[in-house]
Amino acid sequence: MTLSCQHQKKQSKWSGLFNEISHKPLPPPAVSCVLNPFPSPCLPPCACFQLLKALTPEENSLCQHGLYFQDGQRRVDYVLTYPVKKPSAGRSSRQSTHLLTENAVLGCPGETFGGQEDHKAFRREEFEGKLRDMGLELEKDEDTKVTGVGFVKIHAPWNVLCREAELMKLKMPTKKMYEVKQSSGVVEKISSLVSKVLEPLRPHVEEHHTKNIKHLSHTFSREKQHLFDLSDKDYFFDSKTRSSIVSVLKFTCDLLYEEWANYSVFYKYQPIGLVRKYFGEKIGLYFAWLGLYTQMLIPASLVGVIVFLYGCATVDDNIPSMEICHPKNNITMCPLCDRVCSYWKLSTACGTARASHLFDNPATVFFSIFMALWAAMFMEHWKRRQMRLNYEWDLTGFEDEEVSSDHPRAEYEFRVMQKSLSKDQKSKMEKLTCRDRLPAYMTNIVMMLLMIGVTFAIVFGVILYRISTKAALHMSSNPITRNHVQLTVKTTAAIINLVVILILDEVYGAVARWLTVLEVPKTDKSFEERLIFKTFILKFVNAFSPIIYIAFFRGRLVGRPGSYLYVFESYRMEECAHGGCLMELCIQLSITMLGKQLIQNNLFEIGIPKLKKLIRYIRSKQGAFQEEERQKKLQRYETDHFLEPFAGLTPEYMEMIIQFGFVTLFVASFPLAPLFALLNNIIEIRLDAKKFVTELRRPVAARAKDIGIWYNLLRGVAKVAVIINAFVISFTSDFIPRMVYQYMYSPDGSMHGFVNHTLSYFNVSHFQDGKEPMDPLHLGYHVEICRYKDYREPPWSSTPYEISKEFWAVLAVRLAFVIVFQNVVMLMSDIVDWLIPDIPKDISLQIHKEKILLVDLFMKEEQGKIHILESSYRLSTGCKENCSRSDNNNSTAAHPRSGLHTNSTKSL
Amino acid sequence: MTLSCQHQKKQSKWSGLFNEISHKPLPPPAVSCVLNPFPSPCLPPCACFQLLKALTPEENSLCQHGLYFQDGQRRVDYVLTYPVKKPSAGRSSRQSTHLLTENAVLGCPGETFGGQEDHKAFRREEFEGKLRDMGLELEKDEDTKVTGVGFVKIHAPWNVLCREAELMKLKMPTKKMYEVKQSSGVVEKISSLVSKVLEPLRPHVEEHHTKNIKHLSHTFSREKQHLFDLSDKDYFFDSKTRSSIVSVLKFTCDLLYEEWANYSVFYKYQPIGLVRKYFGEKIGLYFAWLGLYTQMLIPASLVGVIVFLYGCATVDDNIPSMEICHPKNNITMCPLCDRVCSYWKLSTACGTARASHLFDNPATVFFSIFMALWAAMFMEHWKRRQMRLNYEWDLTGFEDEEVSSDHPRAEYEFRVMQKSLSKDQKSKMEKLTCRDRLPAYMTNIVMMLLMIGVTFAIVFGVILYRISTKAALHMSSNPITRNHVQLTVKTTAAIINLVVILILDEVYGAVARWLTVLEVPKTDKSFEERLIFKTFILKFVNAFSPIIYIAFFRGRLVGRPGSYLYVFESYRMEECAHGGCLMELCIQLSITMLGKQLIQNNLFEIGIPKLKKLIRYIRSKQGAFQEEERQKKLQRYETDHFLEPFAGLTPEYMEMIIQFGFVTLFVASFPLAPLFALLNNIIEIRLDAKKFVTELRRPVAARAKDIGIWYNLLRGVAKVAVIINAFVISFTSDFIPRMVYQYMYSPDGSMHGFVNHTLSYFNVSHFQDGKEPMDPLHLGYHVEICRYKDYREPPWSSTPYEISKEFWAVLAVRLAFVIVFQNVVMLMSDIVDWLIPDIPKDISLQIHKEKILLVDLFMKEEQGKIHILESSYRLSTGCKENCSRSDNNNSTAAHPRSGLHTNSTKSL
Repeated sequence: MTLSCQHQKKQSKWSGLFNEISHKPLPPPAVSCVLNPFPSPCLPPCACFQLLKALTPEENSLCQHGLYFQDGQRRVDYVLTYPVKKPSAGRSSRQSTHLLTENAVLGCPGETFGGQEDHKAFRREEFEGKLRDMGLELEKDEDTKVTGVGFVKIHAPWNVLCREAELMKLKMPTKKMYEVKQSSGVVEKISSLVSKVLEPLRPHVEEHHTKNIKHLSHTFSREKQHLFDLSDKDYFFDSKTRSSIVSVLKFTCDLLYEEWANYSVFYKYQPIGLVRKYFGEKIGLYFAWLGLYTQMLIPASLVGVIVFLYGCATVDDNIPSMEICHPKNNITMCPLCDRVCSYWKLSTACGTARASHLFDNPATVFFSIFMALWAAMFMEHWKRRQMRLNYEWDLTGFEDEEVSSDHPRAEYEFRVMQKSLSKDQKSKMEKLTCRDRLPAYMTNIVMMLLMIGVTFAIVFGVILYRISTKAALHMSSNPITRNHVQLTVKTTAAIINLVVILILDEVYGAVARWLTVLEVPKTDKSFEERLIFKTFILKFVNAFSPIIYIAFFRGRLVGRPGSYLYVFESYRMEECAHGGCLMELCIQLSITMLGKQLIQNNLFEIGIPKLKKLIRYIRSKQGAFQEEERQKKLQRYETDHFLEPFAGLTPEYMEMIIQFGFVTLFVASFPLAPLFALLNNIIEIRLDAKKFVTELRRPVAARAKDIGIWYNLLRGVAKVAVIINAFVISFTSDFIPRMVYQYMYSPDGSMHGFVNHTLSYFNVSHFQDGKEPMDPLHLGYHVEICRYKDYREPPWSSTPYEISKEFWAVLAVRLAFVIVFQNVVMLMSDIVDWLIPDIPKDISLQIHKEKILLVDLFMKEEQGKIHILESSYRLSTGCKENCSRSDNNNSTAAHPRSGLHTNSTKSL
Repeated sequence: MTLSCQHQKKQSKWSGLFNEISHKPLPPPAVSCVLNPFPSPCLPPCACFQLLKALTPEENSLCQHGLYFQDGQRRVDYVLTYPVKKPSAGRSSRQSTHLLTENAVLGCPGETFGGQEDHKAFRREEFEGKLRDMGLELEKDEDTKVTGVGFVKIHAPWNVLCREAELMKLKMPTKKMYEVKQSSGVVEKISSLVSKVLEPLRPHVEEHHTKNIKHLSHTFSREKQHLFDLSDKDYFFDSKTRSSIVSVLKFTCDLLYEEWANYSVFYKYQPIGLVRKYFGEKIGLYFAWLGLYTQMLIPASLVGVIVFLYGCATVDDNIPSMEICHPKNNITMCPLCDRVCSYWKLSTACGTARASHLFDNPATVFFSIFMALWAAMFMEHWKRRQMRLNYEWDLTGFEDEEVSSDHPRAEYEFRVMQKSLSKDQKSKMEKLTCRDRLPAYMTNIVMMLLMIGVTFAIVFGVILYRISTKAALHMSSNPITRNHVQLTVKTTAAIINLVVILILDEVYGAVARWLTVLEVPKTDKSFEERLIFKTFILKFVNAFSPIIYIAFFRGRLVGRPGSYLYVFESYRMEECAHGGCLMELCIQLSITMLGKQLIQNNLFEIGIPKLKKLIRYIRSKQGAFQEEERQKKLQRYETDHFLEPFAGLTPEYMEMIIQFGFVTLFVASFPLAPLFALLNNIIEIRLDAKKFVTELRRPVAARAKDIGIWYNLLRGVAKVAVIINAFVISFTSDFIPRMVYQYMYSPDGSMHGFVNHTLSYFNVSHFQDGKEPMDPLHLGYHVEICRYKDYREPPWSSTPYEISKEFWAVLAVRLAFVIVFQNVVMLMSDIVDWLIPDIPKDISLQIHKEKILLVDLFMKEEQGKIHILESSYRLSTGCKENCSRSDNNNSTAAHPRSGLHTNSTKSL
């Protein structure tokens, strides 16, 4: 895998070594990139993998050649590549740094700063010297078939591994194994039954045999080597980086390809343990998270479908829509636009009213409370799952020491260097001050505001499009066109919105990266966090601003007949169809969500790689023979040099968090959102798996205890979801007006008369000049009073067209509902948070048990030592004087009872 | 210090040893209590401390006798006491277990279960055997001057300390020291200036010399002993338990007494480092927290005073109160009670209206936002301070391993044992199931509800008292009585409330403990948490329910003239005085808060110990001679046996969290609350310090990284504060009606006419029969229309006395304000939370630096070893064969470059 130097520093475990050992920053290496030695061996399941099966053992070992040093003994743990001074070097070095161009340019000052090949070679040698000083063993290979690229293979010998493991406080399995007992309670019986039922859902991966027997783990220390099972040193450290390619192929890759990266196993759990073994904890956590999220979506979509079906079933009992549809209820409504539109009968809105009921019924309120609690449960479950994985992966006690990511980025150091050069360097400049960063910060703020402004402008543009198109279509002489005005306008507008969102998403991704580079954050961690934060804000605003407009602003700012609000003095603000804006919100939501998922996630993710493959195939046909020839002769690391690099998990997470937004934020208006998300994610998991296994170079295994900033973003979305849902229910839906009518105004406590109650009266003689309908007799009779949806005083009151008491009453109830809903749901979420312990009980018990076992092991070991010591004391002869020399300043205070106790360990 | 056995298990560090080493629970010891060897040597600053100064060295060493074993060499680390079978044993053993009676009874089944002295002695010996097996050394002393009490002195030898330190992963200082550099930025300059200015506030304790030079710390390991500074083994481990009494007296106690537990240094910072050294981390954290809280109260009280002064300054410009006071505004108000009260002039409410303005002005809104943010800042600052203390006390990386507190409590095991005995014991019962606990849980829920019900009943009772007394006093013929009705009733009611709160507080404390004992929680930790949680809920409800009634219910449920609401059909619900209930809320708050603080905190805490001392003094006079004689001859641990035991920090924290509630919850109505809290806390710190230093036995030093559940409770209070303040501002104060009037109804945009606008009209002919005033001509003229404070339609409208449009409008605005306020403040708190990093930057830099230094130390050490090894390799002779025997199964794979690298550590 190709990474720029500072990326490598951060993501690889072994490279952390470089930072940790040196306490001042190493000079940035002149080598541009680090190549993982075992990149995606799954990639050519057709090429190498299937090949391997057919190979004889001798050929097999030949295939492994290149993974060892020339002596065939020492294994290659790392490969560094660098451009060699040859005229043809340009192409491949450019290719290798392709995805991280700006990093490569800024990242290795050796290339841009000095610019001379000699200087580069010198610095490279200096760097290699440093590596050798640390005890690493290097082997150079400049004479490869890949022109212009030199390779430095690195082997980390046992003692270096031991030292680093100790410094990193790695937890390693000790010799001691123990059985994880299943207690015999009712809960356990049920859970074992459940797990039997779910057996077919488990992938056919023999990793759950480890479930009952577990190695006791302890922080590795060279002095306590006897505690650890070192029978096979080659496999002791991190099989994911150390184990041989054959075993990876046989046991991991094969299985992953069959049991994970495969659409036909979509119904099964993921073999997370295996994924982690092969890709490291960070990617393992992503898939575990995605898996849990998908799993949690199952109940959510079930309830969502039930809520939707409830809406369908009760649509015929819904009194308001019955009243609207009833032909006797002959209510004449005021025109929907100036002049060209005429009066219309409310009964023509029957269809919309019935459809609205599907999404606007009491079950929706229940569902949005359910979803808020669901989100809280999801967060809690994730915490537990994470804890469980941490335990299973022996990460408990491991602290994200941030040492490697605390290291300043090369860009940052370059900027500091520039600054000190330009500033006469009175005192050694050590950091960038606020003043240095002010321009970048200002640019950031301005650009972010500008981008958000652009989003709003586009939303406004679509509104204008809708208003003007509607007006134009209304004027059309074709009656069919006029009948389908609503549908046409809505659909086209939603599609325009979608396209704009898709385009802006790409633009914003680039802008966010550019802005973050401008900022020159000090460390990689802060770079990533700032980038994610900016991207998140921009993409979120982009995805949700049209939806928020429809939910909360549309239809609110229309004025009233006789005194409408106008945009640009000619376009009347749009109203919602009768039955609230909820229906339109629902359409917009479903189009945006489905469109984004289908186009962005699936089409882009499947289609574009396929297209690239096609192009590659066509190209390779031209140079078919050489290519094939090359493929065969190349070392594995040379082939891998040409794979697509891994660009981080950010896009995957970002996609999912936006989806999480769709699932939770407006769920009150669209109960089917979880279902769509579920369907998408089932594909998404396998799609991502396929991509990781077969399309990308194998990423450097990175350790991680949690999903970092994403958890906070999820929490944030879940929090915002509560308040947004409260507002959707109380303001967008007609739930509150219905309640208020039923309990405050209804003469018989039923919903009869609700429609009439929500409509105010307008005397058509009060129309402004030039705004009255051109065709007043459209309905066949003369209209004196028309109705419109609002709570206003009738024309005959003392204060005509003023906001009525009902309006204020309904508003007060709406607001009270928001307060109650928000606080009740927040309280319930907090209770869920509090009731579900963060650490699963069995895990905490096991951790406790492990501690006791460990103490036991220590004590036994000590007893054994005393035994040995006592016997050796009796035999002690001339050796004693020689040995005591190495015993440093510990006064051997005699133990009153055994006399041998003290420092027994030391003198061993 | 006397503690029951399971308390000792939890709180002492060395006792953790007993749990950790044995992996099955030890049989509960027959000894009832553990006595700390260095209990409160400060106690008699008159007796031993001042004595010491006058003593010659010989006498001095004599004074130390009893702190060593008979050999005068081994130091006493622990003392266990147990009752000796003598007829006079009863008194002192009862005394020693005095405060934890139920623990002592339940805690040591040996005493209650077997009940025979022989059995007890046998178990005691078994326990002592276990202690010896662990390597501890014991010395018995049954022949003391304290009759009926036997002492077992325990010494922990060096190797046991080492082993335990390793098991507990204690971080100990290494030899390496480094200077904490102060960088030369502007911020640092300012902070150094500030620290110079604050110099006089620092206590005269020479501990800040450690500020610039810090020992590098590393997890202790016997194999790495050479890393640590073991020049004086006696002082290496935890001076707070190991250092000799003389040094404690000289360096710690003396200083603590002078510079901490002393009212005259109230303006100084606390010597937290010293407190921690002497009392352990847990108590250190409490005082650090209390200190920070008090410090943070300074700006809060400043702003509060300014807000109050703003109210005072603007009282004369306040139009509504001017209108009320203006004699020309001759508004006739409806009577405040039935029959006996008559019509009254609004201008007589002038005083109340003016006073109300002090607490009900726009600055209050600002102040409650400020206080919400203040609370968020406080939480953040505490996190940072805690992190800083963790770093300074070398607790970073230390996990609250919960091993000691995971150990089941003796009561729990006793219950399990009982259950298995009664149930034929088919399978070994290992735990209590939900069914076993159901009765206890039910009792808990019922009792909690009952207690809360009692609180509400008492609140209601006080309401009835107020209503009936008011009616009675109104009927009084004495005009002076009648004039002072309001004041009399309010004050007496508030005092009754206060007394009830004080009494119930004590009752609830006992009830909560009883309920928690009933529950039989499994571990000490869960016992403590459940107890705290219950106590918190009960005390909180108790303290705040009268206040909540006044703030949100009083004056809301009064009905209207002609249709008042009646309690028990005769008592009319009470109204608030004109100007809102804010004034009354304020009175109630100040009386409750001041009363609680003065009586509960100070009187109880100072007065009762003084009283006890007096009693002790009087008693000692009777047996004066013997007492004095005894005092002189007794060993230190024998004298300490008679001191008052330490009952945990719960009462101290609880007191403070209730105060925090007063400071934040209703701060909108009482801006002086922070000032009162500040004044109280300045005394409180020194009071608590005095108590800890001179009144109590020295508590067992307990390790803690944080303040545990208290932090969550504080967070909870801060969250609730936001919503309560929102409601206080919008519903209790007149802020929103004023705003609505000014921007919606006022003809000239000013507040003129506001009072008139808030008063509705009532036609006196509509009074119910028998409810009209007896003396209608009280004001000297005939009244036809009287006014009352409400938004209702006038008698001449089509719907007389119905709720008017203004009511709904005001209500909607009130609710909207709540939503906006709550969400804005929550968002701002989150931003504060997000902006202030949890780990102070300098600390994180130093932790990073320490890590690098540590790696450096390791590397150097390794280099040195290689050096030694290389020279010894050259000299290697016959010793080699002997030594290699102890070298276990490490294949010495040759390092290609040095050949000696591998396992060099091991073979040393």
